[in-house]
Amino acid sequence: MNPVSHFSFDREKLHIDWADGASSELQALWLRDHCQMPSSRNPDNGQRLLNITDIPADIGIADVKLDDASILIEFTPGGHSSEFDLQWLRDNCYCLNRQDDDRSETGKQLWHGESFSDGLPRCSYRDFCGLAEHRRSALRAVRDYGFVLLDGVDCKPGEVLRVINRFGFVRETNYGPLFEVRTKVNPTNLAFTNLGLGCHLDNPYRDPVPGLQLLHCLESSTTGGESILQDGFMAASTLRAENPEHFAMLCHTWINFRFHDGSADLRSRVPFIEVNDREEVVKVRFNNRSIDTLKLPADTLRQFYPAYRHYAEILERASQQIVFKLTAGELMLFDNTRVLHARRAYSASGSRHLQGAYSDLDGLYSSLRMLEAEL
Amino acid sequence: MNPVSHFSFDREKLHIDWADGASSELQALWLRDHCQMPSSRNPDNGQRLLNITDIPADIGIADVKLDDASILIEFTPGGHSSEFDLQWLRDNCYCLNRQDDDRSETGKQLWHGESFSDGLPRCSYRDFCGLAEHRRSALRAVRDYGFVLLDGVDCKPGEVLRVINRFGFVRETNYGPLFEVRTKVNPTNLAFTNLGLGCHLDNPYRDPVPGLQLLHCLESSTTGGESILQDGFMAASTLRAENPEHFAMLCHTWINFRFHDGSADLRSRVPFIEVNDREEVVKVRFNNRSIDTLKLPADTLRQFYPAYRHYAEILERASQQIVFKLTAGELMLFDNTRVLHARRAYSASGSRHLQGAYSDLDGLYSSLRMLEAEL
Repeated sequence: MNPVSHFSFDREKLHIDWADGASSELQALWLRDHCQMPSSRNPDNGQRLLNITDIPADIGIADVKLDDASILIEFTPGGHSSEFDLQWLRDNCYCLNRQDDDRSETGKQLWHGESFSDGLPRCSYRDFCGLAEHRRSALRAVRDYGFVLLDGVDCKPGEVLRVINRFGFVRETNYGPLFEVRTKVNPTNLAFTNLGLGCHLDNPYRDPVPGLQLLHCLESSTTGGESILQDGFMAASTLRAENPEHFAMLCHTWINFRFHDGSADLRSRVPFIEVNDREEVVKVRFNNRSIDTLKLPADTLRQFYPAYRHYAEILERASQQIVFKLTAGELMLFDNTRVLHARRAYSASGSRHLQGAYSDLDGLYSSLRMLEAEL
Repeated sequence: MNPVSHFSFDREKLHIDWADGASSELQALWLRDHCQMPSSRNPDNGQRLLNITDIPADIGIADVKLDDASILIEFTPGGHSSEFDLQWLRDNCYCLNRQDDDRSETGKQLWHGESFSDGLPRCSYRDFCGLAEHRRSALRAVRDYGFVLLDGVDCKPGEVLRVINRFGFVRETNYGPLFEVRTKVNPTNLAFTNLGLGCHLDNPYRDPVPGLQLLHCLESSTTGGESILQDGFMAASTLRAENPEHFAMLCHTWINFRFHDGSADLRSRVPFIEVNDREEVVKVRFNNRSIDTLKLPADTLRQFYPAYRHYAEILERASQQIVFKLTAGELMLFDNTRVLHARRAYSASGSRHLQGAYSDLDGLYSSLRMLEAEL
C-alpha cells in the first residue's frame, strides 16, 4: 500500500495525507533546500552542495508526481526536480518530527541517591575493549546517566589516556595530557591536598569546558577519600521545581570564573545552568572555588545570591548523592557538563593515587552512534 | 591622601564616597563572599575556600574601620573580620566596574575588506618563537581581529602541531591530530577536492567546536586557490543593523548540524549566532554543507529562512572579505568561533598542500594574559 493516501499542492506548499492518518504540510523552500539528489547533496557524506542563496527567494512548486515509494517535485523558477523517498520524507518532515537534542535533559535518565539500588552502571574494561555490545552499553550509561565505572583497568601510569583512545580523544590542558591526584607539597590547586572537596564540576573557567573527565585509581589504602557523584541535571530540575525564578536567574545570569597560577590565567564568562532554545538544561557548571569576583548590577546581585544559595543547598543534599570508594583498577568516566563530583577528606597515612584526564563529548557520542548504527 | 573621603554603613551595606567623586554601595553578603583573607581564599591561587552555604543567610555588617590603605569589616552573626585593600575594593566594586567578557564582540576590532590597507596582521615565526613582545602582539591580533599570519614556518609535515605547542594545546579529532588539505581521490569531505569553498567556519557539528584553526601551507604552485577570510562578528553586526528581527531569529533559534562518514557521526544543536546575557555576540557558526535537516515548527521555519538567507547574503559580500594567497611557509591562525574562511577553486595542475589542525581558545587567551602580566 502506498504510504500516501492523498496529496495536494499549490505554489507555496505540498500537503500530504499519510495512509496512517497523519498529515504534513511542507513549504516549497524547505523542500528545495532539503533536496537529496546528487546535484544537491554529496551522496557519500550527505554534505549539502548548494547555498541558500543559490535558491531563488520566490521558489515555488510547479508540479508533483507520486510514485510507489517516492514523490517527484518540480520547482519554479529554474525547473529543478527533486525526487524524495517517501519514507525519508515521513521521517524528516518537520510537522511530524521534532529535532533531537541528545545533550538535553529531556532524553536523559535523571537520578538521585537511591536510584542505583541494583548497582551502579559498571562494565569490565576487558569487555569494554573486546565486545561492541559492552562498549555500547557503557557509552549509553554515560549518555543516559552521565557516568560509568570501568573495572579491571591496569594500574599503570598513563593507562587513563589509553582508555580515552578507545572512544575519543584526549583534551590536553595546562595540567598536561593527564594529571596526578595525590597529596602534594605546596599544591597550586586544592584538589592536590587531602582535604575534602565539595560537589563541583571541573574547569568552569575554561571555555570550552572539557566535556568528559576520567579518574583512574592506581592506589587506595587511605582511610576516607570516598567519591561522591551527583546528577547536576537533577539538581537543576529540583531547583526549577522548587523555585522557577531561581532557576531562571541562574540560566540567564552569566558570571565569571577564573583560575590562575604561575603558568596559566584561565577565565570564562558563562552561566551556572545553560539551557537551549526550548529552555531545556543542556549543561551545568558549579565550582565555588573558582567563581571570580561577581560584578553584577546591584539589583541583579540581590536576586542572584538567593538563587545561588538555593542551588548550592540542593548540591549539598546527601539524598541526591551517591557515595562509593574507588579501588585500585577502577576508573570513573563522567560527563563534566552534567555530573558533579566530590571527595571526602582522607587520612595522611596510606596512599591514594588517581590519574585524571579530560576528553570531549563529541568523540564519545560519535563512537556511540557508530555502535548503535551496527544494530 | 586616603582614597576614601567618607564612608557609612548599616547592617545591609557599606557606602563609600571615594576621594575622586565616585561612590560605591556594597552589600554585606557580597563583601563576606569576596573576603580576601587567607581563611577565605587560598593566597597562592586565589581559590575560594568557603561555600556560599557557609555564610549565614542573614549576614550583616557589625562594624567598619578605615585605615590608610585598607578597610576592616566585622560581620555578624559569626564575628568574622575581613580586611580589604582599598585599591582592590575600588577595582573590583560592582558599582564601578563591569565584568569583562573577552570573547564578546564589544572588546574586538571588527573589520571588513578595506580594513587592512596597511597590511594584514602578520609576524615572523622566528620572532614569534624568540621574542615575547612579538608573540604578545601576534596573540593580541587573534584576540582583537580573530587572526594572524605567521611567516617563515618550516615547510615540514607536522610543523603545525609544533606551532600550537608554542601557545596552547592540540585538539585532536576524528580527522587526526592534523589533517591534510589537498586533492584526494574519493574524498569524504569537500575540503579535500580542488573545488572552491564558500565562507564557512569549521566543524559546527562538533560540540564543543574547536576554537582555533591553523592552516600551514607547505606547497603552493597551482593557479587559483586564494584564501578568503571574513569577520563573522562584523557580519552578525551588519545583520543586526540591517534587520534586528533577523539577527534575533538567528540568535534564538537552535538548529542541528551533522557530519557523518564511515568512521564518525558528529551532531550538534546550536544557534548560528551565540550571544551572552547582554545580547553581545560571543560566537558564530556557519557552514551550509553540514546543516542537518531543519525540523523547526512551521511558523518558525517561515521566519527563519529569510533571516538565514539574509545572513548568507552578507557572508557572500566581497566588500566584507579579504583575499590573499598563502605561499609555502605561511601559516594562518584564526579564531574558528569568529572568522570565516573560504578558498577559491584551483587548477588541477601544480600542487597545493596545506596541513591543518585545531586548538582551543582557552590556551591561547591564557598564554596572552601571562604575556600581558609581564608588562
